[in-house]
Amino acid sequence: MVIRQREPVNFEYPFDRLDTFLTPNSLFYIRSHFKTPALDRESYQLHVDGAVAKALSFRYGELRDLPAEKRVATLECAGNSRIFLVPQVEGAQWQLGAVGNAEWTGVRLRHVLEQAGLADDATEIVFEGADRGKPKEAPCPPEPILYARSLLRAKALSDEVLVAYQMNGQDLPADHGYPVRLIVPGHYGMASVKWLTRIHAIRGTFQGYWQTSDYAYWEEVDGEPVRAPLSEMAVKSQIARPSTYEVVPGGQPYKVFGACWCGAAQVEEIEVSTDGGASWVSAEFLDEPRRFAWRRWQSIWQVPKEPGRYELMARARDSNGQRQPEQHNANYGTYVINHPFAIEVFVDGPATGDGPGH
Amino acid sequence: MVIRQREPVNFEYPFDRLDTFLTPNSLFYIRSHFKTPALDRESYQLHVDGAVAKALSFRYGELRDLPAEKRVATLECAGNSRIFLVPQVEGAQWQLGAVGNAEWTGVRLRHVLEQAGLADDATEIVFEGADRGKPKEAPCPPEPILYARSLLRAKALSDEVLVAYQMNGQDLPADHGYPVRLIVPGHYGMASVKWLTRIHAIRGTFQGYWQTSDYAYWEEVDGEPVRAPLSEMAVKSQIARPSTYEVVPGGQPYKVFGACWCGAAQVEEIEVSTDGGASWVSAEFLDEPRRFAWRRWQSIWQVPKEPGRYELMARARDSNGQRQPEQHNANYGTYVINHPFAIEVFVDGPATGDGPGH
Repeated sequence: MVIRQREPVNFEYPFDRLDTFLTPNSLFYIRSHFKTPALDRESYQLHVDGAVAKALSFRYGELRDLPAEKRVATLECAGNSRIFLVPQVEGAQWQLGAVGNAEWTGVRLRHVLEQAGLADDATEIVFEGADRGKPKEAPCPPEPILYARSLLRAKALSDEVLVAYQMNGQDLPADHGYPVRLIVPGHYGMASVKWLTRIHAIRGTFQGYWQTSDYAYWEEVDGEPVRAPLSEMAVKSQIARPSTYEVVPGGQPYKVFGACWCGAAQVEEIEVSTDGGASWVSAEFLDEPRRFAWRRWQSIWQVPKEPGRYELMARARDSNGQRQPEQHNANYGTYVINHPFAIEVFVDGPATGDGPGH
Repeated sequence: MVIRQREPVNFEYPFDRLDTFLTPNSLFYIRSHFKTPALDRESYQLHVDGAVAKALSFRYGELRDLPAEKRVATLECAGNSRIFLVPQVEGAQWQLGAVGNAEWTGVRLRHVLEQAGLADDATEIVFEGADRGKPKEAPCPPEPILYARSLLRAKALSDEVLVAYQMNGQDLPADHGYPVRLIVPGHYGMASVKWLTRIHAIRGTFQGYWQTSDYAYWEEVDGEPVRAPLSEMAVKSQIARPSTYEVVPGGQPYKVFGACWCGAAQVEEIEVSTDGGASWVSAEFLDEPRRFAWRRWQSIWQVPKEPGRYELMARARDSNGQRQPEQHNANYGTYVINHPFAIEVFVDGPATGDGPGH
């Protein structure tokens, strides 16, 4: 794993090793805000309260006894690819690897909310993790707080959202939320609250730190910028191979390989440029479309004989007609970095000083 | 390459891919302070002036016509492994890969200085690169400056220092100093000035930004801390494999693999711990001792059957008796991170939630 921060643990998938459709647990990126809480399944409890008919608590074993569901979902950190923003900005300097695709096992959130009797006028559901600390970016609260995010009622009651306890058929690793986390397919990773210990239904709009200060953006409403929480992943594609500064042999075919995904629909088209965006060719999907899961793709590049520096890019379009933007949208601040950025590679030739970086 | 900063280019060797004695050019770490200067060999000139009998200029072709020498030297960035400092500090967040070993070809610096007639009372030689900009950390100069470092006379006249134009038999890549750089075997990488365009002999002590503010440390002299420039690399060892959070199979032998180096002498002993430093075993060197070059090593770990989290560490001792310190020395600030730090790995077992991070 590529370490981006040692404590708390923020580790990145070396994305040039992209291979299988499902990302192995040991390579799945870890984005934590605070120290990993030490929870055990014996004392674990999930509290459900607020705008419900009857507050409930579930022990770990009780959750495991409810009907189990499986969902494949790609999770991407909203700050993935931040290192491509120039000049450099604050925050974890993710390259391409703050994204992964796994099969999650758990209980439908809807099932849990139905058992508690969600009030008809509950508008949002707040999810609290057991991880706790003091955020550093202003406006920061004066005392340590728990990590918390909310979902709108409709998403919370959708078929796809899980209260999950397994990842690729194994119990959740500690850094991935052991013993229980939320999984919100289609949303950026910050929605899939790890170490989930409380589900709190509310009437109104949740105004927590990670909902309004962090993981939020400027949305224009009636001509005024207002703060809105990040939610669905924007359409995006990434090149896994070749990787930055790789030297590729000239005059031979090279299999450009990557993945693409989006939150609200399915990626329908993927294109690759090997000349810095001047021209584009369609790439081939390697996975059938499957809502909430990435699709791997490939494209054969007939590498020129001429040695030199080449810029590779990829861009995708989803079934709603959304395309990757040409530039990063400043309203998203240091998040939603889904414009096509160049992967610089070098075509090998005679030793002339025209090598990497020239 | 792992990107640590996109502009200027600061790219890291994925150290878990350590393999050959010589690091391929395309994987050799790049540490640049400013934009890569665009130099060409036709107009290139190396000026030698200051405390010399006769100021000289060398064109690129003239340097190539001088007797060529080859030196194998390990270069390590003085900030390598900075990501292991907790809490996180300022500066490029290198993991293990801001180090590499290459064979450099060029002209002896001594030969160049002799041609110019170095004055008997010249005490230091200042080296200027063509890279230029304004450093960000205080105390920062008000206007853009050239990158510059000095060497003491004795080191500058030593047999090992080269005015180099090739790296592993190929012309220097642009990001590595094309067409000409200094190579100072034994010293941290900041001494091997890239895009070398001026050699300036002085009487006195050079007080440049990268000599006194950055790349400097607090040395105690007569009970007072005084600023001293970083120079020789401290003895250090690193584990390439397994890498952080790797999952290794239980009950089988695993070949722990790494490299070690130092600046002033040769590494004579290398030890590995698989229990967080409680006990140590000797590892086996894979390379003969060779001054200024790293030595790869290996150690067979009989991995326990018990699944769980294990902390691997390595430590070295050089032929001067210097050992890696147990803790980072605060006098070095964010540099010289050569204490043995733990590589956390997980031994695979039945799925119990005792997986990675637990």
